Amino acid sequence: MVDKVLGVLGGMGPLASAHFMVRLTLLTPAAEDQAHIPAVLWSDPRVPPRTAAKLQGGADPLPALLRGIRGLQAAGCGAIAIPCNTAHGWFEPMRDATPLPILHIVDAAAADLARQDVAPGRIGLMGTAATLAMRLYQDRLEGAGWDCLVPDGDAMQRLVTPAIDLVKANRVAEAYPPLAEVAQGLAARGAQAVVLGCTEIPLGIAAGPTLPFPVIDTIDALARASIAWALD
Amino acid sequence: MVDKVLGVLGGMGPLASAHFMVRLTLLTPAAEDQAHIPAVLWSDPRVPPRTAAKLQGGADPLPALLRGIRGLQAAGCGAIAIPCNTAHGWFEPMRDATPLPILHIVDAAAADLARQDVAPGRIGLMGTAATLAMRLYQDRLEGAGWDCLVPDGDAMQRLVTPAIDLVKANRVAEAYPPLAEVAQGLAARGAQAVVLGCTEIPLGIAAGPTLPFPVIDTIDALARASIAWALD
Repeated sequence: MVDKVLGVLGGMGPLASAHFMVRLTLLTPAAEDQAHIPAVLWSDPRVPPRTAAKLQGGADPLPALLRGIRGLQAAGCGAIAIPCNTAHGWFEPMRDATPLPILHIVDAAAADLARQDVAPGRIGLMGTAATLAMRLYQDRLEGAGWDCLVPDGDAMQRLVTPAIDLVKANRVAEAYPPLAEVAQGLAARGAQAVVLGCTEIPLGIAAGPTLPFPVIDTIDALARASIAWALD
Repeated sequence: MVDKVLGVLGGMGPLASAHFMVRLTLLTPAAEDQAHIPAVLWSDPRVPPRTAAKLQGGADPLPALLRGIRGLQAAGCGAIAIPCNTAHGWFEPMRDATPLPILHIVDAAAADLARQDVAPGRIGLMGTAATLAMRLYQDRLEGAGWDCLVPDGDAMQRLVTPAIDLVKANRVAEAYPPLAEVAQGLAARGAQAVVLGCTEIPLGIAAGPTLPFPVIDTIDALARASIAWALD
């Protein structure tokens, strides 16, 4: 029986964190309920939008993020996973506010690049405009030899940003064509694999035909990192 | 913005409660994160098996259930949903231990029978051996004019019980054939609709071709009742 309790700071968006719980379960080697990982999901979709806060001076999400972390701590959790890439723009103040380890989603993605044998070199990176602008991935991955190609401003505005919003509005199937178009464009520019660095993106990409190159699903990557923590 | 917080007492099994969170999200009319329902999922798969407790004198799950309810209450939840039918065998002591309303899954199923225009008369009922033996559904539904046909002992032992265990072991696709066979058998005996009265069963039934008669998915039914509570 697993006695570590995983805290999941979610609701950003709620479909992504619910799907994270599904993947956490399905990726756990377990033959009965009692062998699965205890977890508390704090799904708070009221957290102010992260991209607007970073790029347009919108309301600060940090107080709501810290409220969730305090709630997970009070519930007895031993570590925290945050299935929202953009929220990692507040990683340092969250880490400084809790004694619990926070599993960083970019480290989880890097581990998944290695697990999928993606060689050092050119890879594609999709995410929110804020995640790209903060260089959350580029600075961490380039040190390990992966050079990140990102969509241009037109593709972000016309395809990626609206597709993320479609997933948050439960219109998941409609998000596939624009997201697949951008991923294919990155592959055409020489990316050997594409990191889906916003947890809405793998939901949209799963709604259509499988892409003909490796993708890093950051929901699955964080679920794998969480399972490794819980079963360690 | 929704300010009521739903508490979800889950982990029984963890795939069912994770999928409940997905359905809660997808069934909510929301065009952005902030219009979705705040929720805390307490996913505790360590709760002792409910059927073994009722039928074979196994460990009592009530202390673990009450621990979860206290945790959800401390997290600020305003009502509790429990996406496990068998756990409703402990409904009264749970209700008596908290000031929060608990949304009863059988009431949610009855509302869904009405929503799907299932006329009074013969319906099928599938569930764990404990749920059937406790008459959780029969006594509540027969008062409303729905007569419950249940699988015979052989079908329970050979098909339903092993299929529920397959879902808990993440072998979801393998659960479809035995569950579909039982549902079709109930339809052949005159059931106009079949209540999937164990939250593992709709997961297995969703893994294959749609059945040619109405089914009551108790995950969706409880999600609809939860949304009605939150948006009221």
